[in-house]
Amino acid sequence: MSTAQTWNDILPSEECTRGKNPIRAYVENVLSKAKPNLQKKKITFTLGDPAVYPEFQVEHSVADIISQDVEKSLQLQEPEGPLASRQYVANIYSTDQWKLKADDVFLTMGGSSSLWLLLNVLTNPGDNILVPSPGFPLIFAMAENRNVNLVSYELQSGEDGYIDLEDLEAKLQTSNAKFLLVNNPSNPLGTVWSEEHIRDILALARKYQVPIVADEMYELLVFGSCQPICIGKLSPSQPIFVISGLSKACFVPGWRCGWIVCYGKQEIISEVKKGLKKLCQFYRHPNAVAALKVPEVFEMGKKFGKERMLLVERKAKLIKEKLRGVQGITLYNTKGALYLSIFLDFSKFKNIENSQQFALKLFEEENINVLPGSLFYKDNMIRLVILCSDDDIDDFATRFKEFCERLLIVENNNA
Amino acid sequence: MSTAQTWNDILPSEECTRGKNPIRAYVENVLSKAKPNLQKKKITFTLGDPAVYPEFQVEHSVADIISQDVEKSLQLQEPEGPLASRQYVANIYSTDQWKLKADDVFLTMGGSSSLWLLLNVLTNPGDNILVPSPGFPLIFAMAENRNVNLVSYELQSGEDGYIDLEDLEAKLQTSNAKFLLVNNPSNPLGTVWSEEHIRDILALARKYQVPIVADEMYELLVFGSCQPICIGKLSPSQPIFVISGLSKACFVPGWRCGWIVCYGKQEIISEVKKGLKKLCQFYRHPNAVAALKVPEVFEMGKKFGKERMLLVERKAKLIKEKLRGVQGITLYNTKGALYLSIFLDFSKFKNIENSQQFALKLFEEENINVLPGSLFYKDNMIRLVILCSDDDIDDFATRFKEFCERLLIVENNNA
Repeated sequence: MSTAQTWNDILPSEECTRGKNPIRAYVENVLSKAKPNLQKKKITFTLGDPAVYPEFQVEHSVADIISQDVEKSLQLQEPEGPLASRQYVANIYSTDQWKLKADDVFLTMGGSSSLWLLLNVLTNPGDNILVPSPGFPLIFAMAENRNVNLVSYELQSGEDGYIDLEDLEAKLQTSNAKFLLVNNPSNPLGTVWSEEHIRDILALARKYQVPIVADEMYELLVFGSCQPICIGKLSPSQPIFVISGLSKACFVPGWRCGWIVCYGKQEIISEVKKGLKKLCQFYRHPNAVAALKVPEVFEMGKKFGKERMLLVERKAKLIKEKLRGVQGITLYNTKGALYLSIFLDFSKFKNIENSQQFALKLFEEENINVLPGSLFYKDNMIRLVILCSDDDIDDFATRFKEFCERLLIVENNNA
Repeated sequence: MSTAQTWNDILPSEECTRGKNPIRAYVENVLSKAKPNLQKKKITFTLGDPAVYPEFQVEHSVADIISQDVEKSLQLQEPEGPLASRQYVANIYSTDQWKLKADDVFLTMGGSSSLWLLLNVLTNPGDNILVPSPGFPLIFAMAENRNVNLVSYELQSGEDGYIDLEDLEAKLQTSNAKFLLVNNPSNPLGTVWSEEHIRDILALARKYQVPIVADEMYELLVFGSCQPICIGKLSPSQPIFVISGLSKACFVPGWRCGWIVCYGKQEIISEVKKGLKKLCQFYRHPNAVAALKVPEVFEMGKKFGKERMLLVERKAKLIKEKLRGVQGITLYNTKGALYLSIFLDFSKFKNIENSQQFALKLFEEENINVLPGSLFYKDNMIRLVILCSDDDIDDFATRFKEFCERLLIVENNNA
């Protein structure tokens, strides 16, 4: 019997060779080789997980919720998630006129798996989808993996991060997109759209009959002046698939529990729902420890969310105040999520041509770590996670200001 | 602006229209229409989730484990699962000669998701894979979904459920299979292979250089006379991907926490591992509540598993004793898992041509619910889950015996 082992054919499938996660690639391949200025204190604005920041530790009451009735979580649940939890989600996403049912809701293993499920159900390889620029890059990696083509539409720079509606309409008209991905509140911008703007987007999607996939993972995370608005509630009869969950709303990303809420007339969306149901049989339901507690945990998220967001809002204001007057930059009008993005005017800076150069120089000279906009498919910005301590923000602002001043091209005073 | 809504193109992707789960289809479409004999007490042998049977309730100590340090579970973990838990799994699957590392282990959302990940990494659409007959049907649905072709190899009937090695070799020779799926202890048979038999399978896979995917979800669930044997430990340098997890070993399927252990020389399997790592970025890790507690929960599974299996073994013996002498049937030699399968000799029965007819007649006449072998791609058997109460087993045996006697073709005494 031969024991020669060449095993030549053990290669991963074709799609497994595709789909690079840009953030991971940047951290592993670029950042790891950079040499930060170790004379200065390290300040990190890259980690988007609130659970790791001391000021944003979750209340003990969340642990209490999870610790109760653990016995109930042992049993296998329905593939789409426990009925009572789906019914709860259906209720909170219903309007007076549009009552969702439990079978309009699919519990998932968090936002990433919601997006992955919808991409698999709504597209075939070779199809096009419309995605925001800038946008969170996971969809870029997933689409590459599935051989789905991305058509980017533009968000306006340095202000409210609204969609350039003319640009969007042009692309809806020509792209034959299987869906339009929108993300509000925005990662990476931290912007939050007005109801009027959302209605404009809905009207365009209706006009071109393109389903919307709405990433609203940050739906509860808005500043005091804003009301969270779910796009589906504004036009529930058109096909809209809303992605949200416990991860961000309740600061528990480790629990991997999210959902997809399906809006639209049943005659339009029923086949898509059947497709989602089929895939749920392969992926199975999210862990029952968290999935059974969705109502209690989400209610707690709503309760504590406002306090937490007051803190985030204060930190955002602090950064804005401290960076006032710095030339060459404009701050996006952050109103929610956990992010603040800074628009960079490269024409004002010496020897800086792209966001990665800027971010790496900031790391190497100041030991300050931010993510370059290139990772979010928008090269004229950097993204900050605004959860670190006030002291770090103070320190950051001083050093960032000096950094920008050193880079600035000053008339009659060039280096 | 047009508001006409035809939305013709909102159809699920092509693969979402494929991949029927036979058990679900049987329960929803066939069983739901059958009329059981309600004069008799209902006895159900179909539900494979130990957590729902009173005698198999999990100890409170499991709840205690999960309730401790819940705060740690809030944070996002590595996509492949928490390092310490992967290191624990690597250790328990290592041998004195073959030390696995944490990066040989991928934590998953349970056995289903392990299988799905491996299918996606090891095959392209159009490829062939080798699967057992009978076998658990999820792979049939998944393969149909992915357009992967199944080539079945035969397990011997009515005895130890060993692979017909001649049949397997013929199929290894001709099928160009991307992997060989084996399942030991077996669902649906409850059989457990000897070390010698496993070594024979390994040698064939080596000879034809076909990677093995080993579903060992029931690895700890063997009767007192058996030792659990992990196929990977017997030949760790050849490519073997072992699927197991907490679900069955610890009776906690609701927690959705399993793993893939990768055996094989790194030069052979490294690309496959990269592929798994990539997919983990899309699916993310299993919920941290359970994933962080893998070492403690699995150790508890090992501790309590033996007691539980003594109980299962007693129930299996009870069924065997009570069915002794019944004509037309042979019992598989159950040695583990939670199942007992009964081989049916249709030539001995009146008007019974297949397993579904048999199972439905049993349901309609006796209100006894078992799954027909056709759902496991073997039509000459039925499967029983042997977790119900001794009283139910007593009752079942009496009624099943009478049922078979009524069906029996008796010489010179035909109906």
